[in-house]
Amino acid sequence: MAPMGDLPVVQAMRYASAGGKRLRAFLVLESARLHDVAPQNAIWPAAAIEAMHAYSLVHDDLPCMDDDDLRRGLPTTHVKWDECTAVLAGDALQTLGFECVSCEACHDDPLVRAELTLTLARAAGARGMVLGQALDIAAETAEAPLTLEEITRLQAGKTGALIAWSATAGAVMARADTAPLYRYAQDLGLAFQIADDILDIEGDVATVGKAVGKDVQAGKATFVSLLGLEGAKSRARALVDDACDALAPYGSEAESLREAARFVIARNS
Amino acid sequence: MAPMGDLPVVQAMRYASAGGKRLRAFLVLESARLHDVAPQNAIWPAAAIEAMHAYSLVHDDLPCMDDDDLRRGLPTTHVKWDECTAVLAGDALQTLGFECVSCEACHDDPLVRAELTLTLARAAGARGMVLGQALDIAAETAEAPLTLEEITRLQAGKTGALIAWSATAGAVMARADTAPLYRYAQDLGLAFQIADDILDIEGDVATVGKAVGKDVQAGKATFVSLLGLEGAKSRARALVDDACDALAPYGSEAESLREAARFVIARNS
Repeated sequence: MAPMGDLPVVQAMRYASAGGKRLRAFLVLESARLHDVAPQNAIWPAAAIEAMHAYSLVHDDLPCMDDDDLRRGLPTTHVKWDECTAVLAGDALQTLGFECVSCEACHDDPLVRAELTLTLARAAGARGMVLGQALDIAAETAEAPLTLEEITRLQAGKTGALIAWSATAGAVMARADTAPLYRYAQDLGLAFQIADDILDIEGDVATVGKAVGKDVQAGKATFVSLLGLEGAKSRARALVDDACDALAPYGSEAESLREAARFVIARNS
Repeated sequence: MAPMGDLPVVQAMRYASAGGKRLRAFLVLESARLHDVAPQNAIWPAAAIEAMHAYSLVHDDLPCMDDDDLRRGLPTTHVKWDECTAVLAGDALQTLGFECVSCEACHDDPLVRAELTLTLARAAGARGMVLGQALDIAAETAEAPLTLEEITRLQAGKTGALIAWSATAGAVMARADTAPLYRYAQDLGLAFQIADDILDIEGDVATVGKAVGKDVQAGKATFVSLLGLEGAKSRARALVDDACDALAPYGSEAESLREAARFVIARNS
Protein backbone atom coordinates (compact mmCIF):
# COMPACT_ATOMS: atom_id res chain seq x y z
CA MET A 1 0.00 0.00 0.00
CA ALA A 2 1.40 3.38 -1.01
CA PRO A 3 2.52 5.87 1.67
CA MET A 4 0.11 8.78 1.93
CA GLY A 5 2.29 11.40 0.18
CA ASP A 6 2.57 9.23 -2.93
CA LEU A 7 -1.18 8.91 -3.37
CA PRO A 8 -2.46 10.70 -6.48
CA VAL A 9 -4.97 12.67 -4.39
CA VAL A 10 -2.19 14.18 -2.24
CA GLN A 11 -0.05 14.94 -5.31
CA ALA A 12 -3.11 16.56 -6.90
CA MET A 13 -3.74 18.67 -3.79
CA ARG A 14 -0.16 19.96 -4.00
CA TYR A 15 -0.41 20.56 -7.76
CA ALA A 16 -3.71 22.42 -7.51
CA SER A 17 -2.53 24.74 -4.76
CA ALA A 18 0.78 25.68 -6.42
CA GLY A 19 1.19 28.88 -8.43
CA GLY A 20 -1.41 31.59 -8.78
CA LYS A 21 -1.21 35.21 -7.72
CA ARG A 22 -1.65 34.48 -4.00
CA LEU A 23 -3.81 37.60 -3.79
CA ARG A 24 -5.93 36.16 -0.98
CA ALA A 25 -2.91 35.06 1.09
CA PHE A 26 -1.39 38.50 0.55
CA LEU A 27 -4.57 40.17 1.85
CA VAL A 28 -4.49 38.00 4.98
CA LEU A 29 -0.80 38.71 5.66
CA GLU A 30 -1.13 42.45 5.04
CA SER A 31 -4.25 42.84 7.15
CA ALA A 32 -2.47 40.88 9.89
CA ARG A 33 0.61 43.11 9.66
CA LEU A 34 -1.60 46.21 10.01
CA HIS A 35 -2.82 44.80 13.33
CA ASP A 36 0.56 43.59 14.60
CA VAL A 37 -0.44 39.94 14.29
CA ALA A 38 2.67 37.73 14.16
CA PRO A 39 3.42 36.28 10.70
CA GLN A 40 3.81 32.78 12.16
CA ASN A 41 0.13 33.00 13.13
CA ALA A 42 -1.09 34.82 10.03
CA ILE A 43 0.42 32.19 7.76
CA TRP A 44 -2.34 29.77 8.85
CA PRO A 45 -5.38 31.70 7.65
CA ALA A 46 -3.29 32.64 4.59
CA ALA A 47 -2.73 28.94 3.85
CA ALA A 48 -6.38 28.22 4.64
CA ILE A 49 -7.73 30.71 2.12
CA GLU A 50 -5.39 29.53 -0.63
CA ALA A 51 -6.50 25.94 0.03
CA MET A 52 -10.16 27.03 -0.18
CA HIS A 53 -9.49 29.01 -3.35
CA ALA A 54 -7.64 26.04 -4.90
CA TYR A 55 -10.53 23.71 -3.99
CA SER A 56 -13.01 26.05 -5.69
CA LEU A 57 -10.88 26.22 -8.86
CA VAL A 58 -10.41 22.43 -9.08
CA HIS A 59 -14.15 21.84 -8.82
CA ASP A 60 -15.07 24.80 -11.10
CA ASP A 61 -12.83 23.42 -13.82
CA LEU A 62 -14.49 19.96 -13.83
CA PRO A 63 -16.17 18.83 -17.06
CA CYS A 64 -19.60 18.99 -15.39
CA MET A 65 -18.94 22.60 -14.32
CA ASP A 66 -16.95 25.03 -16.54
CA ASP A 67 -15.05 22.22 -18.32
CA ASP A 68 -11.70 24.02 -18.47
CA ASP A 69 -8.47 22.34 -19.55
CA LEU A 70 -6.06 25.10 -18.60
CA ARG A 71 -5.47 26.85 -15.28
CA ARG A 72 -2.51 28.98 -14.27
CA GLY A 73 -0.94 28.02 -17.59
CA LEU A 74 -1.00 24.29 -16.79
CA PRO A 75 -3.42 21.40 -17.40
CA THR A 76 -6.29 21.46 -14.91
CA THR A 77 -6.27 18.79 -12.19
CA HIS A 78 -8.83 16.50 -13.82
CA VAL A 79 -6.84 16.65 -17.09
CA LYS A 80 -3.54 15.92 -15.34
CA TRP A 81 -5.08 13.07 -13.30
CA ASP A 82 -8.77 12.25 -13.70
CA GLU A 83 -12.16 13.52 -12.53
CA CYS A 84 -12.30 11.23 -9.53
CA THR A 85 -8.93 12.45 -8.23
CA ALA A 86 -9.95 16.07 -8.91
CA VAL A 87 -13.20 15.75 -6.95
CA LEU A 88 -11.40 14.14 -4.00
CA ALA A 89 -8.46 16.58 -4.07
CA GLY A 90 -10.88 19.53 -4.07
CA ASP A 91 -12.83 17.99 -1.19
CA ALA A 92 -9.65 17.45 0.84
CA LEU A 93 -8.39 20.98 0.09
CA GLN A 94 -11.61 22.40 1.52
CA THR A 95 -11.18 20.25 4.64
CA LEU A 96 -7.53 21.36 4.91
CA GLY A 97 -8.65 24.99 4.83
CA PHE A 98 -10.77 24.44 7.93
CA GLU A 99 -7.98 22.48 9.61
CA CYS A 100 -5.57 25.40 9.10
CA VAL A 101 -7.80 27.95 10.84
CA SER A 102 -8.84 25.68 13.70
CA CYS A 103 -5.40 24.36 14.67
CA GLU A 104 -3.61 25.75 17.74
CA ALA A 105 -0.70 27.13 15.69
CA CYS A 106 -3.12 29.55 14.04
CA HIS A 107 -3.90 31.49 17.21
CA ASP A 108 -3.58 31.13 20.98
CA ASP A 109 -7.11 32.35 21.54
CA PRO A 110 -9.67 29.63 20.70
CA LEU A 111 -12.31 32.35 20.27
CA VAL A 112 -10.31 33.71 17.34
CA ARG A 113 -9.93 30.24 15.84
CA ALA A 114 -13.67 29.59 16.16
CA GLU A 115 -14.45 33.01 14.65
CA LEU A 116 -12.09 32.47 11.69
CA THR A 117 -13.69 29.07 11.11
CA LEU A 118 -17.27 30.31 11.32
CA THR A 119 -16.68 33.31 9.05
CA LEU A 120 -14.79 31.10 6.57
CA ALA A 121 -17.67 28.62 6.50
CA ARG A 122 -20.17 31.42 5.92
CA ALA A 123 -18.03 32.92 3.14
CA ALA A 124 -17.56 29.57 1.39
CA GLY A 125 -21.00 28.01 1.76
CA ALA A 126 -24.45 28.24 0.22
CA ARG A 127 -24.83 31.87 1.33
CA GLY A 128 -21.41 32.84 -0.06
CA MET A 129 -19.22 31.26 -2.70
CA VAL A 130 -21.44 28.28 -3.49
CA LEU A 131 -24.43 30.64 -3.75
CA GLY A 132 -22.53 32.68 -6.35
CA GLN A 133 -21.66 29.52 -8.24
CA ALA A 134 -25.26 28.31 -8.15
CA LEU A 135 -26.57 31.69 -9.36
CA ASP A 136 -23.99 31.60 -12.16
CA ILE A 137 -25.23 28.18 -13.26
CA ALA A 138 -28.87 29.22 -12.99
CA ALA A 139 -28.09 32.25 -15.17
CA GLU A 140 -26.94 29.98 -18.01
CA THR A 141 -30.45 28.65 -18.51
CA ALA A 142 -32.35 31.78 -17.46
CA GLU A 143 -34.68 33.37 -20.02
CA ALA A 144 -33.33 36.91 -19.62
CA PRO A 145 -29.68 37.91 -19.19
CA LEU A 146 -28.75 39.06 -15.70
CA THR A 147 -29.12 42.69 -14.70
CA LEU A 148 -26.25 44.70 -13.23
CA GLU A 149 -27.76 44.27 -9.76
CA GLU A 150 -28.03 40.50 -10.19
CA ILE A 151 -24.52 40.10 -11.52
CA THR A 152 -23.18 42.18 -8.64
CA ARG A 153 -24.94 39.90 -6.15
CA LEU A 154 -23.64 36.83 -7.97
CA GLN A 155 -20.04 38.05 -7.91
CA ALA A 156 -20.29 39.22 -4.30
CA GLY A 157 -20.78 35.53 -3.50
CA LYS A 158 -18.62 33.84 -6.11
CA THR A 159 -15.41 35.81 -5.59
CA GLY A 160 -16.25 38.60 -3.15
CA ALA A 161 -16.94 36.51 -0.06
CA LEU A 162 -13.52 34.83 0.14
CA ILE A 163 -11.75 38.11 -0.72
CA ALA A 164 -13.63 39.87 2.08
CA TRP A 165 -12.72 37.07 4.49
CA SER A 166 -9.04 37.39 3.51
CA ALA A 167 -8.87 41.14 3.92
CA THR A 168 -10.61 41.11 7.31
CA ALA A 169 -8.77 38.08 8.74
CA GLY A 170 -6.02 40.21 10.29
CA ALA A 171 -8.56 42.36 12.12
CA VAL A 172 -10.40 39.25 13.33
CA MET A 173 -7.11 37.83 14.64
CA ALA A 174 -6.44 41.04 16.57
CA ARG A 175 -10.10 41.24 17.66
CA ALA A 176 -10.16 44.72 16.10
CA ASP A 177 -12.80 46.56 14.03
CA THR A 178 -13.20 44.83 10.66
CA ALA A 179 -15.28 47.62 9.04
CA PRO A 180 -12.57 49.53 7.09
CA LEU A 181 -11.04 46.36 5.68
CA TYR A 182 -14.49 44.99 4.88
CA ARG A 183 -15.36 48.11 2.87
CA TYR A 184 -11.98 47.91 1.12
CA ALA A 185 -12.58 44.24 0.27
CA GLN A 186 -16.11 44.80 -1.07
CA ASP A 187 -14.79 47.36 -3.56
CA LEU A 188 -11.70 45.31 -4.32
CA GLY A 189 -13.67 42.12 -4.97
CA LEU A 190 -15.99 43.82 -7.42
CA ALA A 191 -13.09 45.59 -9.18
CA PHE A 192 -11.33 42.23 -9.38
CA GLN A 193 -14.30 40.63 -11.11
CA ILE A 194 -14.75 43.53 -13.53
CA ALA A 195 -11.04 43.20 -14.39
CA ASP A 196 -11.60 39.47 -14.96
CA ASP A 197 -14.43 40.21 -17.38
CA ILE A 198 -12.17 42.71 -19.20
CA LEU A 199 -9.37 40.11 -19.39
CA ASP A 200 -11.82 37.65 -20.90
CA ILE A 201 -12.20 40.18 -23.78
CA GLU A 202 -8.75 41.76 -24.02
CA GLY A 203 -6.40 39.07 -22.65
CA ASP A 204 -4.64 36.31 -24.56
CA VAL A 205 -4.64 32.75 -23.34
CA ALA A 206 -0.82 32.49 -22.99
CA THR A 207 -0.61 35.46 -20.61
CA VAL A 208 -3.87 34.94 -18.73
CA GLY A 209 -3.06 31.23 -18.23
CA LYS A 210 -6.64 30.09 -18.76
CA ALA A 211 -9.20 30.10 -21.56
CA VAL A 212 -10.42 33.55 -22.67
CA GLY A 213 -13.39 34.74 -24.73
CA LYS A 214 -15.62 32.16 -23.04
CA ASP A 215 -18.20 34.63 -21.73
CA VAL A 216 -18.79 36.28 -25.10
CA GLN A 217 -18.97 32.88 -26.78
CA ALA A 218 -21.56 31.71 -24.24
CA GLY A 219 -23.51 34.98 -24.59
CA LYS A 220 -23.21 35.51 -20.83
CA ALA A 221 -24.03 38.85 -19.25
CA THR A 222 -20.85 40.33 -17.75
CA PHE A 223 -19.88 43.74 -16.43
CA VAL A 224 -18.46 44.45 -19.89
CA SER A 225 -21.62 43.43 -21.74
CA LEU A 226 -23.69 45.55 -19.35
CA LEU A 227 -21.44 48.62 -19.00
CA GLY A 228 -19.41 48.49 -22.22
CA LEU A 229 -15.63 48.14 -22.20
CA GLU A 230 -14.92 51.77 -21.30
CA GLY A 231 -17.76 51.89 -18.81
CA ALA A 232 -16.43 48.76 -17.10
CA LYS A 233 -12.91 50.17 -16.94
CA SER A 234 -14.07 53.44 -15.44
CA ARG A 235 -16.27 51.60 -12.92
CA ALA A 236 -13.30 49.46 -11.89
CA ARG A 237 -11.11 52.56 -11.45
CA ALA A 238 -13.77 54.22 -9.29
CA LEU A 239 -14.04 51.09 -7.13
CA VAL A 240 -10.27 51.00 -6.65
CA ASP A 241 -10.33 54.67 -5.58
CA ASP A 242 -13.08 53.87 -3.08
CA ALA A 243 -11.15 50.81 -1.86
CA CYS A 244 -8.08 52.97 -1.22
CA ASP A 245 -10.16 55.62 0.56
CA ALA A 246 -11.59 52.96 2.89
CA LEU A 247 -8.08 52.37 4.20
CA ALA A 248 -7.74 55.95 5.51
CA PRO A 249 -7.78 54.87 9.19
CA TYR A 250 -4.55 52.96 8.56
CA GLY A 251 -2.71 55.89 6.92
CA SER A 252 0.44 55.13 4.97
CA GLU A 253 0.80 51.74 6.69
CA ALA A 254 -1.82 50.41 4.26
CA GLU A 255 0.06 51.50 1.13
CA SER A 256 0.75 47.93 -0.02
CA LEU A 257 -2.98 47.12 0.18
CA ARG A 258 -3.63 50.21 -1.96
CA GLU A 259 -1.02 48.97 -4.44
CA ALA A 260 -2.74 45.58 -4.48
CA ALA A 261 -6.02 47.29 -5.37
CA ARG A 262 -4.34 49.16 -8.23
CA PHE A 263 -2.67 45.91 -9.35
CA VAL A 264 -6.01 44.12 -9.48
CA ILE A 265 -7.22 46.28 -12.38
CA ALA A 266 -3.80 46.65 -14.06
CA ARG A 267 -2.92 42.93 -14.10
CA ASN A 268 -2.78 40.94 -17.31
CA SER A 269 -3.30 37.48 -15.78
CA MET B 1 -33.19 35.89 -9.79
CA ALA B 2 -34.42 32.98 -7.70
CA PRO B 3 -34.49 33.26 -3.89
CA MET B 4 -31.77 31.11 -2.32
CA GLY B 5 -34.02 28.32 -1.01
CA ASP B 6 -35.40 27.68 -4.50
CA LEU B 7 -31.98 27.16 -6.05
CA PRO B 8 -31.41 23.57 -7.19
CA VAL B 9 -28.22 23.37 -5.12
CA VAL B 10 -30.11 24.14 -1.90
CA GLN B 11 -32.90 21.70 -2.79
CA ALA B 12 -30.23 19.09 -3.53
CA MET B 13 -28.54 19.72 -0.16
CA ARG B 14 -31.86 19.10 1.57
CA TYR B 15 -32.58 16.00 -0.52
CA ALA B 16 -29.13 14.49 0.05
CA SER B 17 -29.25 14.94 3.80
CA ALA B 18 -32.76 13.49 4.27
CA GLY B 19 -33.31 9.89 5.32
CA GLY B 20 -30.63 7.43 6.31
CA LYS B 21 -30.14 5.66 9.59
CA ARG B 22 -28.77 8.76 11.41
CA LEU B 23 -26.28 6.47 13.16
CA ARG B 24 -23.65 9.22 13.41
CA ALA B 25 -26.08 11.79 14.81
CA PHE B 26 -27.30 9.18 17.29
CA LEU B 27 -23.72 8.56 18.45
CA VAL B 28 -23.20 12.29 18.99
CA LEU B 29 -26.44 12.70 20.94
CA GLU B 30 -25.87 9.61 23.08
CA SER B 31 -22.25 10.46 23.90
CA ALA B 32 -23.44 13.97 24.79
CA ARG B 33 -26.18 12.60 27.05
CA LEU B 34 -23.62 10.41 28.86
CA HIS B 35 -21.70 13.60 29.70
CA ASP B 36 -24.72 15.73 30.61
CA VAL B 37 -24.29 17.96 27.58
CA ALA B 38 -27.54 19.77 26.78
CA PRO B 39 -29.37 18.45 23.69
CA GLN B 40 -29.74 21.97 22.28
CA ASN B 41 -25.94 22.07 22.07
CA ALA B 42 -25.42 18.47 20.98
CA ILE B 43 -27.78 18.89 18.05
CA TRP B 44 -25.13 21.05 16.31
CA PRO B 45 -22.33 18.50 16.06
CA ALA B 46 -25.05 15.91 15.28
CA ALA B 47 -26.22 18.05 12.35
CA ALA B 48 -22.60 18.68 11.35
CA ILE B 49 -21.71 15.01 11.11
CA GLU B 50 -24.84 14.18 9.10
CA ALA B 51 -24.01 17.02 6.69
CA MET B 52 -20.45 15.69 6.32
CA HIS B 53 -21.72 12.15 5.83
CA ALA B 54 -24.25 13.34 3.23
CA TYR B 55 -21.53 15.28 1.40
CA SER B 56 -19.35 12.15 1.25
CA LEU B 57 -22.23 10.05 -0.12
CA VAL B 58 -23.18 12.60 -2.80
CA HIS B 59 -19.59 12.76 -4.07
CA ASP B 60 -18.99 8.98 -3.73
CA ASP B 61 -22.04 8.28 -5.86
CA LEU B 62 -20.86 10.51 -8.76
CA PRO B 63 -20.26 8.83 -12.14
CA CYS B 64 -16.50 9.50 -11.86
CA MET B 65 -16.43 7.80 -8.43
CA ASP B 66 -18.67 4.78 -7.64
CA ASP B 67 -21.29 5.70 -10.26
CA ASP B 68 -24.32 4.73 -8.19
CA ASP B 69 -27.91 5.50 -9.19
CA LEU B 70 -29.63 4.52 -5.97
CA ARG B 71 -29.08 5.71 -2.41
CA ARG B 72 -31.38 5.26 0.57
CA GLY B 73 -33.90 3.77 -1.88
CA LEU B 74 -34.06 6.96 -3.99
CA PRO B 75 -32.26 8.26 -7.08
CA THR B 76 -28.82 9.65 -6.18
CA THR B 77 -28.40 13.43 -6.27
CA HIS B 78 -26.67 13.60 -9.66
CA VAL B 79 -29.43 11.42 -11.15
CA LYS B 80 -32.21 13.53 -9.62
CA TRP B 81 -30.49 16.80 -10.70
CA ASP B 82 -27.17 16.66 -12.55
CA GLU B 83 -23.47 16.21 -11.81
CA CYS B 84 -22.79 19.90 -11.50
CA THR B 85 -25.51 20.36 -8.86
CA ALA B 86 -24.31 17.23 -7.04
CA VAL B 87 -20.69 18.45 -6.87
CA LEU B 88 -21.80 21.86 -5.57
CA ALA B 89 -24.34 20.44 -3.10
CA GLY B 90 -21.68 18.10 -1.69
CA ASP B 91 -19.22 20.99 -1.41
CA ALA B 92 -21.76 23.15 0.40
CA LEU B 93 -22.77 20.31 2.74
CA GLN B 94 -19.14 19.95 3.81
CA THR B 95 -18.95 23.70 4.45
CA LEU B 96 -22.23 23.53 6.40
CA GLY B 97 -20.75 20.81 8.60
CA PHE B 98 -17.94 23.13 9.66
CA GLU B 99 -20.39 26.01 10.13
CA CYS B 100 -22.49 23.89 12.51
CA VAL B 101 -19.58 23.07 14.84
CA SER B 102 -18.06 26.56 14.85
CA CYS B 103 -21.24 28.57 15.50
CA GLU B 104 -21.95 29.96 18.96
CA ALA B 105 -25.12 27.90 19.39
CA CYS B 106 -22.99 24.74 19.35
CA HIS B 107 -21.17 25.52 22.58
CA ASP B 108 -20.48 28.47 24.90
CA ASP B 109 -16.80 27.61 25.15
CA PRO B 110 -14.89 28.62 22.00
CA LEU B 111 -12.19 26.10 22.91
CA VAL B 112 -14.73 23.31 22.48
CA ARG B 113 -15.91 24.75 19.15
CA ALA B 114 -12.32 24.99 17.89
CA GLU B 115 -11.62 21.43 19.10
CA LEU B 116 -14.73 20.01 17.42
CA THR B 117 -13.76 21.80 14.21
CA LEU B 118 -10.14 20.66 14.25
CA THR B 119 -10.97 17.04 15.01
CA LEU B 120 -13.70 17.04 12.37
CA ALA B 121 -11.25 18.40 9.78
CA ARG B 122 -8.72 15.73 10.70
CA ALA B 123 -11.34 12.97 10.51
CA ALA B 124 -12.66 14.14 7.15
CA GLY B 125 -9.44 15.09 5.35
CA ALA B 126 -6.54 13.45 3.57
CA ARG B 127 -5.45 11.63 6.73
CA GLY B 128 -8.99 10.40 7.45
CA MET B 129 -12.00 9.88 5.20
CA VAL B 130 -10.42 11.16 1.98
CA LEU B 131 -7.37 8.97 2.66
CA GLY B 132 -9.66 5.94 2.91
CA GLN B 133 -11.37 6.92 -0.32
CA ALA B 134 -8.05 7.41 -2.09
CA LEU B 135 -6.74 4.04 -0.87
CA ASP B 136 -9.98 2.43 -2.07
CA ILE B 137 -9.49 3.91 -5.53
CA ALA B 138 -5.80 2.95 -5.61
CA ALA B 139 -6.80 -0.63 -4.71
CA GLU B 140 -8.93 -0.90 -7.85
CA THR B 141 -5.86 -0.73 -10.07
CA ALA B 142 -3.39 -2.40 -7.67
CA GLU B 143 -1.69 -5.58 -8.86
CA ALA B 144 -2.45 -7.63 -5.76
CA PRO B 145 -5.73 -7.61 -3.79
CA LEU B 146 -5.55 -5.84 -0.42
CA THR B 147 -4.49 -7.74 2.69
CA LEU B 148 -6.58 -7.77 5.85
CA GLU B 149 -4.25 -5.20 7.41
CA GLU B 150 -4.55 -2.89 4.41
CA ILE B 151 -8.31 -3.14 4.19
CA THR B 152 -8.57 -2.44 7.91
CA ARG B 153 -6.47 0.74 7.46
CA LEU B 154 -8.56 1.75 4.46
CA GLN B 155 -11.83 1.35 6.34
CA ALA B 156 -10.49 3.05 9.46
CA GLY B 157 -10.23 6.15 7.25
CA LYS B 158 -13.19 5.72 4.96
CA THR B 159 -15.90 5.08 7.54
CA GLY B 160 -14.10 4.76 10.88
CA ALA B 161 -12.84 8.33 11.25
CA LEU B 162 -16.26 10.04 11.12
CA ILE B 163 -17.80 7.35 13.35
CA ALA B 164 -15.02 7.88 15.91
CA TRP B 165 -15.57 11.64 15.78
CA SER B 166 -19.31 11.16 16.35
CA ALA B 167 -18.93 8.82 19.32
CA THR B 168 -16.34 11.03 21.05
CA ALA B 169 -18.06 14.38 20.34
CA GLY B 170 -20.01 14.30 23.61
CA ALA B 171 -16.83 13.79 25.65
CA VAL B 172 -15.11 16.61 23.73
CA MET B 173 -18.07 18.89 24.49
CA ALA B 174 -17.79 18.09 28.20
CA ARG B 175 -13.98 18.29 28.07
CA ALA B 176 -13.95 14.75 29.48
CA ASP B 177 -11.78 11.70 28.68
CA THR B 178 -12.52 10.47 25.16
CA ALA B 179 -10.65 7.14 25.49
CA PRO B 180 -13.54 4.74 26.30
CA LEU B 181 -15.76 6.16 23.55
CA TYR B 182 -12.84 6.16 21.14
CA ARG B 183 -12.20 2.46 21.77
CA TYR B 184 -15.94 1.75 21.40
CA ALA B 185 -16.01 3.65 18.10
CA GLN B 186 -12.97 1.91 16.64
CA ASP B 187 -14.60 -1.48 17.18
CA LEU B 188 -18.00 -0.23 16.08
CA GLY B 189 -16.64 1.32 12.87
CA LEU B 190 -14.91 -1.87 11.83
CA ALA B 191 -17.95 -4.00 12.72
CA PHE B 192 -20.09 -1.58 10.69
CA GLN B 193 -17.90 -2.03 7.62
CA ILE B 194 -17.80 -5.82 7.95
CA ALA B 195 -21.61 -5.77 8.17
CA ASP B 196 -21.67 -3.62 5.01
CA ASP B 197 -19.55 -6.19 3.19
CA ILE B 198 -21.90 -8.95 4.37
CA LEU B 199 -24.94 -6.95 3.19
CA ASP B 200 -23.30 -6.58 -0.21
CA ILE B 201 -23.44 -10.41 -0.42
CA GLU B 202 -26.61 -11.29 1.49
CA GLY B 203 -28.78 -8.19 1.11
CA ASP B 204 -31.31 -7.38 -1.58
CA VAL B 205 -31.40 -4.02 -3.29
CA ALA B 206 -34.97 -3.14 -2.20
CA THR B 207 -34.18 -3.52 1.50
CA VAL B 208 -30.61 -2.21 1.47
CA GLY B 209 -31.66 0.83 -0.58
CA LYS B 210 -28.52 0.86 -2.71
CA ALA B 211 -26.85 -1.44 -5.24
CA VAL B 212 -25.60 -4.79 -3.89
CA GLY B 213 -23.17 -7.40 -5.20
CA LYS B 214 -20.88 -4.67 -6.53
CA ASP B 215 -17.78 -5.79 -4.63
CA VAL B 216 -17.94 -9.39 -5.82
CA GLN B 217 -18.62 -8.21 -9.37
CA ALA B 218 -15.59 -5.90 -9.23
CA GLY B 219 -13.44 -8.66 -7.71
CA LYS B 220 -12.66 -6.35 -4.77
CA ALA B 221 -11.03 -7.65 -1.61
CA THR B 222 -13.51 -7.28 1.27
CA PHE B 223 -13.69 -8.60 4.81
CA VAL B 224 -15.89 -11.38 3.44
CA SER B 225 -13.48 -12.34 0.63
CA LEU B 226 -10.62 -12.39 3.14
CA LEU B 227 -12.31 -14.01 6.14
CA GLY B 228 -15.13 -15.96 4.49
CA LEU B 229 -18.81 -15.26 5.28
CA GLU B 230 -18.83 -17.11 8.61
CA GLY B 231 -15.39 -15.76 9.57
CA ALA B 232 -16.57 -12.21 8.85
CA LYS B 233 -19.73 -12.68 10.90
CA SER B 234 -17.83 -14.06 13.86
CA ARG B 235 -15.25 -11.24 13.64
CA ALA B 236 -18.06 -8.65 13.60
CA ARG B 237 -19.67 -10.26 16.67
CA ALA B 238 -16.33 -10.21 18.52
CA LEU B 239 -15.86 -6.54 17.67
CA VAL B 240 -19.33 -5.70 18.96
CA ASP B 241 -18.56 -7.52 22.22
CA ASP B 242 -15.34 -5.51 22.56
CA ALA B 243 -17.19 -2.29 21.72
CA CYS B 244 -19.72 -3.00 24.49
CA ASP B 245 -16.93 -3.83 26.97
CA ALA B 246 -15.23 -0.50 26.22
CA LEU B 247 -18.29 1.25 27.63
CA ALA B 248 -17.84 -0.31 31.10
CA PRO B 249 -16.93 3.05 32.74
CA TYR B 250 -20.42 4.32 31.87
CA GLY B 251 -22.25 1.31 33.35
CA SER B 252 -25.90 0.86 32.41
CA GLU B 253 -26.16 4.49 31.24
CA ALA B 254 -24.48 3.39 28.00
CA GLU B 255 -27.01 0.66 27.23
CA SER B 256 -28.38 2.42 24.16
CA LEU B 257 -24.88 2.70 22.70
CA ARG B 258 -24.48 -1.06 23.29
CA GLU B 259 -27.80 -1.62 21.51
CA ALA B 260 -26.55 0.51 18.63
CA ALA B 261 -23.48 -1.70 18.35
CA ARG B 262 -25.65 -4.81 18.25
CA PHE B 263 -27.94 -3.14 15.70
CA VAL B 264 -24.98 -2.35 13.44
CA ILE B 265 -24.38 -6.06 12.73
CA ALA B 266 -28.05 -7.10 12.82
CA ARG B 267 -29.33 -4.42 10.41
CA ASN B 268 -30.56 -5.28 6.94
CA SER B 269 -30.04 -1.85 5.36
